[in-house]
Amino acid sequence: MAVSMDDDVPLILTLDDSGSSTSAPLDDLDREELPNQNGGSYDVINDASSPAAGDCCAQQSSARHNWEMNYQEAAIYLQEGENNDKFFTHPKNAKALAAYLFAHNHLFYLMELSTALLLLLLSLCEAPAVPMLRLGIFVHATLELFALIVVVFELSMKMRWLGFQTFIRHKRTMVKTCVLFVQFIEAIVVLVRQTSHVRITRALRCIFLVDCRYCGAVRRRNLRQIFQSLPPFIDILLLLLFFMVIFAILGFYLFSPNHSDPYFNTLENSLVNLFVLLTTSNFPDVMMPSYARNPWSCVFFIVYLSIELYFIMNLLLAVVFDTFNDIEKRKFKSLLLHKRTAMQHAYRLLITKQRPSGISFKHFEGLLRFYKPRMCARERYLTFKALNQSNTPLVSLKDFYNFYEVVGLKWKAKRNREHWFDDLPRTAFLIFKGINILVKSRVFQYTMYTVVAVNGIWILVETFMLQGGNFFPRNVPWSYIVFLTIYGVELLLKTTGLGPVEYLSSGWNLFDFSVTLFAFLGLMALAFNMEPFYFIVVLRPLQLLRLFKLKKRYRNVLDTMFELFPRMASLGLTLLIFYYCFAIVGMEFFAGVVYPNCCNTSTVADSYRWVNHTVGNKTIVEEGYYYLNNFDNILNSFVTLFELTVVNDWYIIMEGVTSQTTHWSRLYFMIFYIVTMVVMTIIVAFILDAFVFRMNYTRKNQDSEEDNGIVLEKEISKEEVVGIIELYKRSSAATETAQLQKIVLQMDKYGQMSTLFLGRRSRTKSDLSMKMYEEEIQEWYEEHSRKEESQTPLQEPASASSSSLKPVSLRQRSQTV
Amino acid sequence: MAVSMDDDVPLILTLDDSGSSTSAPLDDLDREELPNQNGGSYDVINDASSPAAGDCCAQQSSARHNWEMNYQEAAIYLQEGENNDKFFTHPKNAKALAAYLFAHNHLFYLMELSTALLLLLLSLCEAPAVPMLRLGIFVHATLELFALIVVVFELSMKMRWLGFQTFIRHKRTMVKTCVLFVQFIEAIVVLVRQTSHVRITRALRCIFLVDCRYCGAVRRRNLRQIFQSLPPFIDILLLLLFFMVIFAILGFYLFSPNHSDPYFNTLENSLVNLFVLLTTSNFPDVMMPSYARNPWSCVFFIVYLSIELYFIMNLLLAVVFDTFNDIEKRKFKSLLLHKRTAMQHAYRLLITKQRPSGISFKHFEGLLRFYKPRMCARERYLTFKALNQSNTPLVSLKDFYNFYEVVGLKWKAKRNREHWFDDLPRTAFLIFKGINILVKSRVFQYTMYTVVAVNGIWILVETFMLQGGNFFPRNVPWSYIVFLTIYGVELLLKTTGLGPVEYLSSGWNLFDFSVTLFAFLGLMALAFNMEPFYFIVVLRPLQLLRLFKLKKRYRNVLDTMFELFPRMASLGLTLLIFYYCFAIVGMEFFAGVVYPNCCNTSTVADSYRWVNHTVGNKTIVEEGYYYLNNFDNILNSFVTLFELTVVNDWYIIMEGVTSQTTHWSRLYFMIFYIVTMVVMTIIVAFILDAFVFRMNYTRKNQDSEEDNGIVLEKEISKEEVVGIIELYKRSSAATETAQLQKIVLQMDKYGQMSTLFLGRRSRTKSDLSMKMYEEEIQEWYEEHSRKEESQTPLQEPASASSSSLKPVSLRQRSQTV
Repeated sequence: MAVSMDDDVPLILTLDDSGSSTSAPLDDLDREELPNQNGGSYDVINDASSPAAGDCCAQQSSARHNWEMNYQEAAIYLQEGENNDKFFTHPKNAKALAAYLFAHNHLFYLMELSTALLLLLLSLCEAPAVPMLRLGIFVHATLELFALIVVVFELSMKMRWLGFQTFIRHKRTMVKTCVLFVQFIEAIVVLVRQTSHVRITRALRCIFLVDCRYCGAVRRRNLRQIFQSLPPFIDILLLLLFFMVIFAILGFYLFSPNHSDPYFNTLENSLVNLFVLLTTSNFPDVMMPSYARNPWSCVFFIVYLSIELYFIMNLLLAVVFDTFNDIEKRKFKSLLLHKRTAMQHAYRLLITKQRPSGISFKHFEGLLRFYKPRMCARERYLTFKALNQSNTPLVSLKDFYNFYEVVGLKWKAKRNREHWFDDLPRTAFLIFKGINILVKSRVFQYTMYTVVAVNGIWILVETFMLQGGNFFPRNVPWSYIVFLTIYGVELLLKTTGLGPVEYLSSGWNLFDFSVTLFAFLGLMALAFNMEPFYFIVVLRPLQLLRLFKLKKRYRNVLDTMFELFPRMASLGLTLLIFYYCFAIVGMEFFAGVVYPNCCNTSTVADSYRWVNHTVGNKTIVEEGYYYLNNFDNILNSFVTLFELTVVNDWYIIMEGVTSQTTHWSRLYFMIFYIVTMVVMTIIVAFILDAFVFRMNYTRKNQDSEEDNGIVLEKEISKEEVVGIIELYKRSSAATETAQLQKIVLQMDKYGQMSTLFLGRRSRTKSDLSMKMYEEEIQEWYEEHSRKEESQTPLQEPASASSSSLKPVSLRQRSQTV
Repeated sequence: MAVSMDDDVPLILTLDDSGSSTSAPLDDLDREELPNQNGGSYDVINDASSPAAGDCCAQQSSARHNWEMNYQEAAIYLQEGENNDKFFTHPKNAKALAAYLFAHNHLFYLMELSTALLLLLLSLCEAPAVPMLRLGIFVHATLELFALIVVVFELSMKMRWLGFQTFIRHKRTMVKTCVLFVQFIEAIVVLVRQTSHVRITRALRCIFLVDCRYCGAVRRRNLRQIFQSLPPFIDILLLLLFFMVIFAILGFYLFSPNHSDPYFNTLENSLVNLFVLLTTSNFPDVMMPSYARNPWSCVFFIVYLSIELYFIMNLLLAVVFDTFNDIEKRKFKSLLLHKRTAMQHAYRLLITKQRPSGISFKHFEGLLRFYKPRMCARERYLTFKALNQSNTPLVSLKDFYNFYEVVGLKWKAKRNREHWFDDLPRTAFLIFKGINILVKSRVFQYTMYTVVAVNGIWILVETFMLQGGNFFPRNVPWSYIVFLTIYGVELLLKTTGLGPVEYLSSGWNLFDFSVTLFAFLGLMALAFNMEPFYFIVVLRPLQLLRLFKLKKRYRNVLDTMFELFPRMASLGLTLLIFYYCFAIVGMEFFAGVVYPNCCNTSTVADSYRWVNHTVGNKTIVEEGYYYLNNFDNILNSFVTLFELTVVNDWYIIMEGVTSQTTHWSRLYFMIFYIVTMVVMTIIVAFILDAFVFRMNYTRKNQDSEEDNGIVLEKEISKEEVVGIIELYKRSSAATETAQLQKIVLQMDKYGQMSTLFLGRRSRTKSDLSMKMYEEEIQEWYEEHSRKEESQTPLQEPASASSSSLKPVSLRQRSQTV
């Protein structure tokens, strides 16, 4: 079973089999080579004699196995480096390795994710459930038990891989285990009693999601960031609360003699109202009774708001932003050094006693087989060449340090022809060339901008003329057809002029394409009267977004927006996790508490009123609607929590619930406000940081702007390819050989002696940081290597224990092919 | 008259008189010296022969006069450098110089400020006036005319100083002249017609305030910053509005079929409501009708708010913050280079043909007489010594570049004794020493913190127990007396232990002192039943602020707060200026529009309702209070505008006014929202920038923290002092001689051969920037000097024309003494 789920290591079988017969020109020392099995590579690097030199006389077949093991372990080290996994979780023996491999592939991750999601989604069906999705207690409790058992299985795999000692030391896993235990007991209790009790612990289900590999970004970046920002945040929060208390006392003394002022009649009211005032949610109202009596009382509120809202709240942002900046840098540093250590570990496992100065292609290829099994032979060789800065056939440690930057590149042969139609006959070529020139001309571009602008104004005017009634005419309006035709022609011209591949490689063109497609679908919907799809028609104004290409700043902003998108999504997910916790708690306490006309005794009665009274012949419905903001099921709770996040008029919801329960309910709302404030501040700080960082970067590289990510050029000669083919042939790797021979054929066809390949990947935040902190990075490296030298005795055991990986069942597995 | 108002140049008379007889050891070359009258100092510096060498044979008395003129001009240059005045406004001849001196002293500035304030305050009395301050049209129009005539006088002085050509070129002054002209005509029209017309131009009165010298910070820093941030701001604003339009169309199509939804029934309503939604001000309400019909419609609002509020609005902040950062740095650079140029100009005027390598003390002293007339002789010499890095008696250009940093230092002799009580008899000394040790001990400090905390809890509990009724007891509560006694004893101990001077030199102690004083005044108020002062009692909880000394972050935050205070105040003033403009416009259009029960036809009728109906025996008053938020006079307008700034429920005010006027009134409110958004964003950006800057600085200088500003140490030997005394004696400067002789006496008393002086000043933002941009500054200087070298021919005429200052009436003036 373990093998079948391991889609990370399918090539083991092929290559392990063939390793014995390789003696490619690049690899002629193969036979004598022995891996640095005991992690003693440090000694070899330092030109000291290896204490484990006696191992040299091991058997050839054992050596081959050891090599495979080393490849795998090196690949694991590199993965750990990339994922920022600590090395103390490194698998220490064969059993652990098997569990590690089992627990580190996409099927397992998917299982992890789906059980977590299942557990979370259960709250849709558990009482108080969404009406349509209600399930019997027996059904949902059984489902829950099933999911929990899967989690138990996952955890046991993890324990197998980590070993009991490490498992206990790993805090997050321990918390998860405890939560799992509690959930288990509760699920059984529910099943036995056949009735749901107050299960606030369901809020803890989030931990299963957070612990997923796929949610690593949420956990590592956002939650940790939030927790690290907390101490300074709390400090300023205390300052805020302190001033609030002072002003509450002051306000109580000043305004409580005014009996028409309900906001300051007790100290508690005074405090609560000033808390709400901090969110500005009750602003002019809270001032009005005292303002009506004495106009100068507005000074109290102006001073309070100036200090609290305009100064301390901004300070809060400043402090979080500052901490954020600092943390980002420190995180970048630690990840960089962690990766470096990982590369050192991997390097040590790949060099040989005979040639300690670098890694040969054969071993590098072996590593890549485990590290990136989907990579084709050509790409492996190109990666090797890109790393290899010197002219020797070995990759030194210094070169190897660029591993992560280079391994992500997508390699493509550089085309000799400029356009896709270069090979066409003369007439066709001229026509297409004409279209190409037209499409690229400024006149064409600006004409299109004008058309888009006219279209925008047209839509606006058209909508403005429509005043109620039947919005979607039976007949398709002619303006729609005209504009769509123009867009269609533009799309056609661009596709033919640039070629489909080049056309779709630009994000903006992709956007144009999809918007035009949507408009076309809308036209279809109109023409064939498919009412449910009318909303597509409404998306037409999106065309206008194209206008923003005109200005550089917008391009910058929109590019930043797209770059930020994944991170924003993960921040959104973090917010949702908090929402989930609060929704569960809210449902347990406040479900069914709020209903029409529920709160007639409170100050916010109007908002909850639902009166249906008849005056004369007319029925007048007075609706306050706020009873819709309830905690009756999880979807409603989410909407209510979003409303609380937006903050405006949140006190109406709070007061409504409070009037139906106790005044301690306010704590729930206040805590929720503070939590969202933290997350929102982090979001603002994050956007600020990312944007300012990017602008600084643009400013620093003003000359080299308009670059499309990282590009690397490498030339491969025919002999080299033939050499690698030989190598693969001997390993009887058919697919690789065939792939490479295609390249040779292509070269022969064009009569070239070599082909130029371009490696390309998009620029990541890490690349930008590398450039920004260029100078400091060198210092960090030096500091790090100094530290490492002094700590080598401490690190040795870890690396020694890691080498105790023994050739497991891998041999048997390899023999099945 | 010019002389009498010139409190900047009183020492001219004394020293001009005595200049001839100086031949101090430091100045033995005096007789042969001639100033570089024609600005040819460049040539001298470059060791080229001066073309104006023929002037050498000018008369001795003329030379003296020329020296005085040079001192004065150099001082003017340095002032221009400090104030960031452009050099093209440099006075070019004697008449201009007289006008310049007249227009650059505090009396003139005060006149400027008071006329501007008078003009602004007039709007309190003009219809619609604050009831208590209403004045007859004749009275306020006459007052206005008077103020305007004063402004004319100020402008004519400026014209005299600048010359007609420069005056015309100076944009701000030209705008001011135009506004003045319009105001003049309008005031006369009002006076003639005896009735006020629609005078929106009154909003332009602000320009008189902005143009004041004392409001230079507001003008230079804030307004310019706002205008420079505008282009990127507007770009993002367009993006925001664009999405708003798209969503308005979408919302109109989606929700207008729902007839119970008043928010989206027309496109205009849809747009307005989405604009208000951007401010979250109508949030759950705007969603409720559609949400009640179809729960999924909440998606529309969530997406809209996520894009607009949480993404683009934050982007707005990011863009402004980024621009802000950039502008701050460029401003710092330009000011730095401007100062440098000013120093070069001044330096050229102070060196002699005979000794072109530096400035001698005599000439430096002459400069300081004009630049800082209040400085005493000792300080002048210490400043000279602090500048002089080499051991020669001359200050070179390189040394002179530190002029601005050094001239602000406050010099004090370094005390030999540690405590103030060192000179007291043995017993007393021991007692005070004991108190000193006690006061400085940690135990004492933490005891006091505990007392403060207990006091805070006490007050809280006490207030909590009070539930309405007579808050201020007839008898002083004993807890008040106990705590006040403790604070009094602490204050006494600290004052005696540290000495009053040292005690009050710390800001925190000053705070303690004033709070305790206030508490004592409160006690008095209670004891003698002075009701109007009861509010002082309420300030007691401020004591709790002392607790924030405990943590370093708070100290940092509060220190930053105090450093930011002046700048925050100037930002507040900027906001007030915008308020003024909007208040005038609002009053002209909306005065008297809103009153109780005015808006029964609008959707916000409830908020304006004022019903007084009797049910049974009780009179129930239903008050909506919003009619209080009106534009009936300028004070009410300010409060209303503040409410609009806070944003919450601002649409109620907008809708109220709109229902009574036309729907174009909304434009006023929307524009106001956008303007305050700009200013508020700038404020946030400013706080962010200042705070992050400070934190970075603290991080960079972690070792040298806890420094109290800039400190410089200089030792002066007795011979030096005697030498200077000789110099002053010959100039028969009696006060200076006496001052210096006191130092000699003190040295004799303690038997010292020299005294150590400490120069101290607080650290400014400029100092921090200097340190932060250390490396870049060198580049700027090099770039600047390269540019200057290439531009020298262009600059020569200016400097030549500046030297055409002829000895004016100064001679006559000097002879009056």
